[in-house]
Order: sequence, then structure tokens, then C-alpha cells
Amino acid sequence: MASDPVQSAEDMILLIPGPTPVPGRVLRAQSRRMINHRCPAFHELLQRVTAGLKPCFRTAGDPLLLTASGTGGLEAALVNTLSPGDRVLAVSTGAFGKRFADIAAAYGAEVSRLDVEWGLPGALVLVDAISGLLATALEHDAWGLDVTVAGSQKAFMIPPGLSFVAMSDRAWEASKRARMPRFYFDLEPARTSLAKGENPWTPAVSLVYALDEALAMIAEEGHEAMLARHLRLRDGVRAGCRVLGLEPLAADSCASPAVTALRVPDGLDEPQVRARLRGRYGVEIAGGQGHLKGKIVRIGHLGWVSETNVLQGVALLGQALRDLGRPVDPAAAVAAAEAATRGNA
Amino acid sequence: MASDPVQSAEDMILLIPGPTPVPGRVLRAQSRRMINHRCPAFHELLQRVTAGLKPCFRTAGDPLLLTASGTGGLEAALVNTLSPGDRVLAVSTGAFGKRFADIAAAYGAEVSRLDVEWGLPGALVLVDAISGLLATALEHDAWGLDVTVAGSQKAFMIPPGLSFVAMSDRAWEASKRARMPRFYFDLEPARTSLAKGENPWTPAVSLVYALDEALAMIAEEGHEAMLARHLRLRDGVRAGCRVLGLEPLAADSCASPAVTALRVPDGLDEPQVRARLRGRYGVEIAGGQGHLKGKIVRIGHLGWVSETNVLQGVALLGQALRDLGRPVDPAAAVAAAEAATRGNA
Repeated sequence: MASDPVQSAEDMILLIPGPTPVPGRVLRAQSRRMINHRCPAFHELLQRVTAGLKPCFRTAGDPLLLTASGTGGLEAALVNTLSPGDRVLAVSTGAFGKRFADIAAAYGAEVSRLDVEWGLPGALVLVDAISGLLATALEHDAWGLDVTVAGSQKAFMIPPGLSFVAMSDRAWEASKRARMPRFYFDLEPARTSLAKGENPWTPAVSLVYALDEALAMIAEEGHEAMLARHLRLRDGVRAGCRVLGLEPLAADSCASPAVTALRVPDGLDEPQVRARLRGRYGVEIAGGQGHLKGKIVRIGHLGWVSETNVLQGVALLGQALRDLGRPVDPAAAVAAAEAATRGNA
Repeated sequence: MASDPVQSAEDMILLIPGPTPVPGRVLRAQSRRMINHRCPAFHELLQRVTAGLKPCFRTAGDPLLLTASGTGGLEAALVNTLSPGDRVLAVSTGAFGKRFADIAAAYGAEVSRLDVEWGLPGALVLVDAISGLLATALEHDAWGLDVTVAGSQKAFMIPPGLSFVAMSDRAWEASKRARMPRFYFDLEPARTSLAKGENPWTPAVSLVYALDEALAMIAEEGHEAMLARHLRLRDGVRAGCRVLGLEPLAADSCASPAVTALRVPDGLDEPQVRARLRGRYGVEIAGGQGHLKGKIVRIGHLGWVSETNVLQGVALLGQALRDLGRPVDPAAAVAAAEAATRGNA
């Protein structure tokens, strides 16, 4: 492995599903001095970011802000709506879907794990949108979702540590009957405190600063433009990687605008690919999880990622593959990626 | 209320029990770019901060890092050691002691709330040291404590959003039998992941950067010096405020080195005192909680607080009281505070 004295982990082109790159103006906003979380200035800040979260979830209700990673938000979704013994149909498409089901089971729900299409009329619909929100269309209100969970370190472009939860009226009704034990993740005190511009517990103030700035950037780009950009990034990654001999795991018809999983061809060692790419070319991509560990790589293209970043990633992944003996043409891959981002795939 | 166009909430002299002021070098460390939390650089970082946390807790074990406020750490202490129906003796000296007991009750423990001296030989001892750790002596190992919980936004001098939990061997034994449901706050996966330099869920990376820098500052000052400084700050606040006619709530024999609660004399309106102090003199102090709301003010003097900050606070509190018609002598209060910080009270 090449050792480069002035290249550090922080200098990477970060193409992972999270933490995603944080824009400079968000990093600077985050480093503002502390304020009292029980003072008028914080009340105003929390009310402003709550207003800014609503269009992200496409909801008229107030999304609640938790100081926790996304997994904490998933736990909040479950413990606020269910009771031990309740039946849960977990529709899982990957490692994190399994996690959502595992939390429900830990709290005593009867979990059935299915891979079929969902749709249980009458039941509550709880959605893990941690990686998806703002990268792909989601309409919390219009689609009749009951609990939608998002996380800060994804398309929101801020560091990990905050989770956001949108609740429907049906979910709030269910919360009155829900008997799963809860305290830190109890959303009723969060709702009550929000009316005063506060969190019930001490919130991660620096991350709320970051959120405030990121929401301004999200509003500047516009919701539709942001979704369209993610589709272009997705198409670029898929087209470029195909030329490099890395086939996407998911079909085009259901490809994620947030992250692309790619099969590692036979004869290639997945950790070696990532190590070469990181160590020599300064690009960080992710490996697989669960039973796909070692068999796939995952390229994140959500949040503060540009078409330039995607072309950088494709070009340098091609270089790394060449170094490992694959007969690939990085320039051809970049050309395909660029054409795809312009809708000419 | 005076309105000052260039004075904002961030420009306050922050004398509250948390969030405490964050040193400039910690704010700058915090604003570093994101890295993959599943990469060698993060593994090294997490292992370094874990090593740095050990002397703070005075433990040979590895304290665990949670992305949550202190309340989440308290929940972790309880759900990892107890089962529904277990008897808990809650020794509470204030609003947060009540919270610890409330969490236990929410998860089905049988809670007795006592105001007596503690000591239950054989039982597990779970300590809420969120505000106290590093401000006052605590020896997790030597005192035989089982679970000690601390929080980032206190004497650790970093923004809110992280909680730290030290466990004894007895606590780990108890965790095998503990039947309270848990997932996000389950400490066993945290311990297992730490061996790889990872957190089980995505950690608040920017706050871990901040912790890394703050632990360096804590090591530079030295544990004993840090405790001694907090005692000097405490003595200065108490002596100065007494001259201003604000009597400490706690006796000298059990006065906290972290925060001083002061009775608001009859005829003074507590919100008016804090509003005048904030609005005209740029000093933020806290009010009371629970049944003491409106009857006390609380001055935080933990973390990155200097003797200068204490003298500023006393002088300006004196000014605010004068403005509200109290016949106090701020200069005499400052002199008393200064003498007390030099051990000449």
C-alpha cells in the first residue's frame, strides 16, 4: 500500500452511503459557539429547523428531532406505536431492514419477515427512510405513511448524530395505546417540548446548527432538483461501473438513487479493491454487509455529491482495477458515466 | 430589554450547567471533514478516545461511547442491568435524580424513591455522574461503582450529543441476566464492536473529533489540577454571590464543584434577573427546575470555565441586581470571589 504523507482519511473523495460529505458552509455553521438549549435563541433555531424539515418529509406535521443515529430513530418508530405481542410484517430489502425487524423483536413484537410486496390495509406503515429521504421521492402525507424515519448523515449532508421522525395522526393515536417501554425515545415529550421550541433532553446543539445551514442549502437547490440530481448520479455510477465490469446488484427498474451495490467479479478480492482505491487514489467506497460481505462494493452517491465526484470515482476505480490486473478502460467508463448523467445512457 | 445589534446568543458568557463553553481548538477539531466510520482512521480514533476516557472515569475498563444525550446514557445503565420487577432504590438529590428513577419505572422496575444516605451492600450501584465527572472526584473502580454515566456537554468541554458509560465486571455479569428490552442502548454490541474500533451504529463522528481534542486538553491540565480548579471556581461563585445577597441552596459541606444553586431573595423576580443579565450584560445563567423553578438561579462553573469567567459573572450579576433596585456592591462581591478562588475565603 502506498503511503502518502499528506493524504489523510479526511482528504478522501467520500463515496459511501454515510457519513456523506459535509459542505464547508455546514462544517463552519457547526463550529459556532454553544448556546443555552433553554433560551430564546435556541427556541427560534429549533422552530426554524422543524419548519425546514416539513418539506423534506412532505408533511404538514412537525417532524421530531432526536439526538441519536438512525437506529435510534427506528427504535423510536417502533416503541411509540407498538405493544409487546403485536404482529409486525417486516419487509426487508437489506441489512438495515433486518435491523428494523430485530429492534421490534427485542421489544417483544411478533415479527414475520417477508420478502413479498407489502400492503396490509389497516395496519400502520413504518418506513425506514434513513438513506432514502431527499435522495428519492417520498410523500409522508400523500402516501399515508404513519412513521417515517430519516437520519442526518445521509442526503441531509450533515454529520451523524441526529435522527428525524415524522408521525401521522394515526401514529399519534397508536402511541396512546402503545405499551412498549420507552423513555429517551418517547415522542410524546418531544412533541410537547417542541411547542416551546425545546427538546425534552439536551439536544446535539452543534448538529442543529449544521442542520439549519443544510436545510437552507436544500431549499436553495429545491426538492425536485435535488431528486433529479440523485437520479443523474445514480445513472452515471451504474453506466460507468458497467463498463468497468462491475454489474449492479439491483435491476435498473428498482435502482436506488442513494447507493449502488455492485458485484465484485470472480477473481477480484473486494478488500484489495477498496484498499487500493483508498490508499493510492484517495477514494473511499463501502463494502457489503451480512451475507454479501466480500461479494459486493457499495458506492454512495447521496447528499453533497456532484457529477464531478461521480466521474472522479469512476475514473479512479478504473485505475485501481487496472492496477489489480483487470483489462479495463477507465476513459471509456468515464465517457459512459458522463453520457448517462446527461440522460444519454 | 436592551437590544444590542452585535450581541448574540453565541456571544454570551455561558455560566450554565450545560451545554458548557467549548474551547476554540475543540470547535475547530469538530469541524473536520467526515470520514468513514468503518475505516482504519476511525478505528484508531475510537480506540484513542476510549483510552483517553479511562482516566476520566478512573477505571481500567473500556468506557463505551453512545450517540445520545446523558438521558440516553442513564437509560443504557438501567436497561442493561435490570429486569422488569427488579427493586430499585433511587437516591435523588434533584430533578435529574428523579429522571433516572422515572426511566427505571418506565421499563417496569419497582422503584422506591428515598432521600436518605445510600448504601445497599450487594446491590448494583448505578451512578449518574453526567454533571459531576471531571468536576468532582469519582473513582469508578476504587469505589466499586457498577455503572457510571457521563455526558459530553459538561466538564468534558464538548457539545451535547455523546454519553459515556463505564461498566464493572459485576455490571457485565448482570447484563447477561437483565431482561429489560433494549436495542439502541444495548451495551454488549458496543463492547463487541469496540474491539474492532467501531460502534455498532453510526457514531456522531464530529463529536468524536471534538472528544479527541478535549481529552488532549484534559490530559494537559491533569486530573488533579482540573478537580482543584473546579473547587476554586465553586468557592469564588459562592463567596461572590453571598455578598450579593444570594444564598447558596446547599451547605458548604456538600457544595457541588460543578454548579451552584442560589436562592432568589424575596421581592426579586427570577426570570427578570436572568433576562436583565442576558439582555444587558451578556451572561447566561440557568433557572431552577421542578418545584424550585422561579425560586433559584443556577450558575454553572464546570468544564472550560476560568476564574476570569467567574469574576465576570459575579460582577455582572451584581450590576443586574443593582439595575433591579437591590442595594448591592458588585465590587465587594468581586473582591470576595477573588479572595475565595485564592483560598482566602
